Amino acid sequence: MITQILSTGDEILYGQICDTNAAFLASRLTMMGIRPCRIQAAGDDKEPLVELLSQMAAESDLVLVTGGLGPTNDDRTALAASLAFNLPLELNPEALESMTAYFKKRGFELTKANEKQAWLPRTAKVLVNENGTAPGFCVQSNKCRFFFMPGVPSEMKQMFFGQVQPVIAAKQGMQGRIHMARVSVFGLPESRVGELLKGFDERFENMRLGFRANFPVIEVKIVCHEDESKPESLGKDIEKNVDQARQWVISKLENRVYSDTGLSLAAELGRELSGRNLTLAVAESCTGGLIASSITDVSGSSGYFLMAAVTYANAVKTGCLGVEDKTLQDKGAVDEAVALQMARGVRTKSGAHVALSTTGIAGPGGATDTKPVGMVCVAAVGPGFSVTRTYYLDTGDRLRTKALFAAAAMNLLLRQIKKLE
Amino acid sequence: MITQILSTGDEILYGQICDTNAAFLASRLTMMGIRPCRIQAAGDDKEPLVELLSQMAAESDLVLVTGGLGPTNDDRTALAASLAFNLPLELNPEALESMTAYFKKRGFELTKANEKQAWLPRTAKVLVNENGTAPGFCVQSNKCRFFFMPGVPSEMKQMFFGQVQPVIAAKQGMQGRIHMARVSVFGLPESRVGELLKGFDERFENMRLGFRANFPVIEVKIVCHEDESKPESLGKDIEKNVDQARQWVISKLENRVYSDTGLSLAAELGRELSGRNLTLAVAESCTGGLIASSITDVSGSSGYFLMAAVTYANAVKTGCLGVEDKTLQDKGAVDEAVALQMARGVRTKSGAHVALSTTGIAGPGGATDTKPVGMVCVAAVGPGFSVTRTYYLDTGDRLRTKALFAAAAMNLLLRQIKKLE
Repeated sequence: MITQILSTGDEILYGQICDTNAAFLASRLTMMGIRPCRIQAAGDDKEPLVELLSQMAAESDLVLVTGGLGPTNDDRTALAASLAFNLPLELNPEALESMTAYFKKRGFELTKANEKQAWLPRTAKVLVNENGTAPGFCVQSNKCRFFFMPGVPSEMKQMFFGQVQPVIAAKQGMQGRIHMARVSVFGLPESRVGELLKGFDERFENMRLGFRANFPVIEVKIVCHEDESKPESLGKDIEKNVDQARQWVISKLENRVYSDTGLSLAAELGRELSGRNLTLAVAESCTGGLIASSITDVSGSSGYFLMAAVTYANAVKTGCLGVEDKTLQDKGAVDEAVALQMARGVRTKSGAHVALSTTGIAGPGGATDTKPVGMVCVAAVGPGFSVTRTYYLDTGDRLRTKALFAAAAMNLLLRQIKKLE
Repeated sequence: MITQILSTGDEILYGQICDTNAAFLASRLTMMGIRPCRIQAAGDDKEPLVELLSQMAAESDLVLVTGGLGPTNDDRTALAASLAFNLPLELNPEALESMTAYFKKRGFELTKANEKQAWLPRTAKVLVNENGTAPGFCVQSNKCRFFFMPGVPSEMKQMFFGQVQPVIAAKQGMQGRIHMARVSVFGLPESRVGELLKGFDERFENMRLGFRANFPVIEVKIVCHEDESKPESLGKDIEKNVDQARQWVISKLENRVYSDTGLSLAAELGRELSGRNLTLAVAESCTGGLIASSITDVSGSSGYFLMAAVTYANAVKTGCLGVEDKTLQDKGAVDEAVALQMARGVRTKSGAHVALSTTGIAGPGGATDTKPVGMVCVAAVGPGFSVTRTYYLDTGDRLRTKALFAAAAMNLLLRQIKKLE
């Protein structure tokens, strides 16, 4: 199946935004066993778009298009499709209805500018947009099936999962069921993860590995697609096979796997805490609130997260957390003894079962002769454990270094908690 | 000048990584006044690559290619170029020399696998790679000039700035100097920003507007390129013209411009605070540390930022910040009176000049009959001001709502501080 992806919009062609839609669609298609042969981006100009769509219709079986479905004059994708496929634009009642409903729900009236979005090429099938005004559509030209989706990533993704992926999967003669396992890794570079997992393809037929680096964490996806032509790949066995592959992957990754379900560090930490009815407090210096923010990114975190004290100034470390002046003077703020006092201080203050703290130098300034940028001291205290560590994690970039500090701290705490009964 | 960008590599075609190289090159070319007409991505397979390069040579004047110059077998760009342009591969002495020097500097010997990277199409001009092993090259086919660069973004960027951009600029008869102004906007959707700035192109010749949405903030770039053929566009006047354009843009944007130099909200807040020798403390509930983390993302923030109390649990709001139990009971945690007590509490506790607080419902859970998801109460207190606001900012996505809460709070404080003498 010759498959192409086309992103439209001047903002992509002129580099104002990075084309994340194409990467998303390419990765989802690849997981379904459909390898795109080309990705293209074009601007808002009508003529080049018409030419490109005609060419794609002649040479492809499947094309996914994003962008250019909005209400303004520079949104010309439906018009270009109409010209390329020789299908006149018509007011599509279903599209108009779904847009009217969308506006009504939000207390607005449909404007004339928006009505333009309901004019679609004849024979087009509407794809309802749950998250925005621009309806998508599916249309056939020659032997090629086109799916047109909005350019806004959240709208496009919901449309893809709900209305595009199932149709493609059905056409492929597949049940469309994808079995996937995810494993999350911290503490290894992506290239090393790839090396350690060499041999996967030969060992596990019909499965594919995907990597997604979400700095500083790497997510390994194991993807298996049900194939109706191979009955042995269906049903229960497939789950067992995927699980075997997951176990093999975990065994190869040198104990750096922190989640066997693909969660973020903060989410995995939250899962472990709430499973044990433990509450958490955090004291942050160099991470500046990033740990607290990551933890509260997880919905439901109010069930276990009590507080964070972001004690940037030394006086606040003393005043709020009871860190001893003498320790700060003798050892400086970046020291395991200070980290430990911070963790104990915030634990006492909040009454939390578990506490985590960081103090370090994110850079670019702040280094001394003995304490380089990238040095961070972490303490994790809780029922039956009290550990401190010093890591050297400079990345040359303040934000990345902060992210690495936060991840290293959460990883240390997570390991302590997993050891508990 | 018909210009195209080509990114090569299976990791792009199959969506394992997002193609940031194309966005970078597209944006640099656009700033130089060269608008790319198409962006394409192809995989590592030789045949499709040869076909694509031949096609591009026939129809374009300038093509920038990235990727596929590495030492392994799946790096086939030089070979594909050799076949497409009918120029045999030859060991290029200059390329070999630059690689040998690169390895020597790092104490390594050149391996046979690396030597492969020095085999370039006959007539190719080497582009030295300062940051890695893969040399780039420039080669002419028909009337089209191709620049081949490595896929690693840092290597590609250095090569582009040092050896590609100057050559393109010289060919264009330009000095290559770009003048740019940036303006940052909060509180308007991108479509509205575009509408308000209609008429820019007619009013300001030789200038272009660019938009970059960095949710929830929009950055407007005003780009002006020196043109040697128009002496009036050179030197001092150009700065004056760009500044006039900036003033026009600011005047159109309904007081929603918070920075006329393109800073983030946290950086602009830091600039205003340190310019007035004011210190800051923050009390966060629903934003969960995101404000503190944004503020400490700015290098030098330790000069004005003292602390944040992330008081997620009500008991901590009372215990740490002195919020009255009665207020919490009578009004609930999401209330302007609570926000005000939080801000005052953290200000007193830290001794900071200025304090900012948030309490709200980021969702998806936590809404009540009278308090919907997206409701947030903000308080900003400081010398001579004490203001509270309630905003309704649901985005349907917890992380985006948190980001919007944090931005709205920082924006409120920033406006108070800018009013100070």
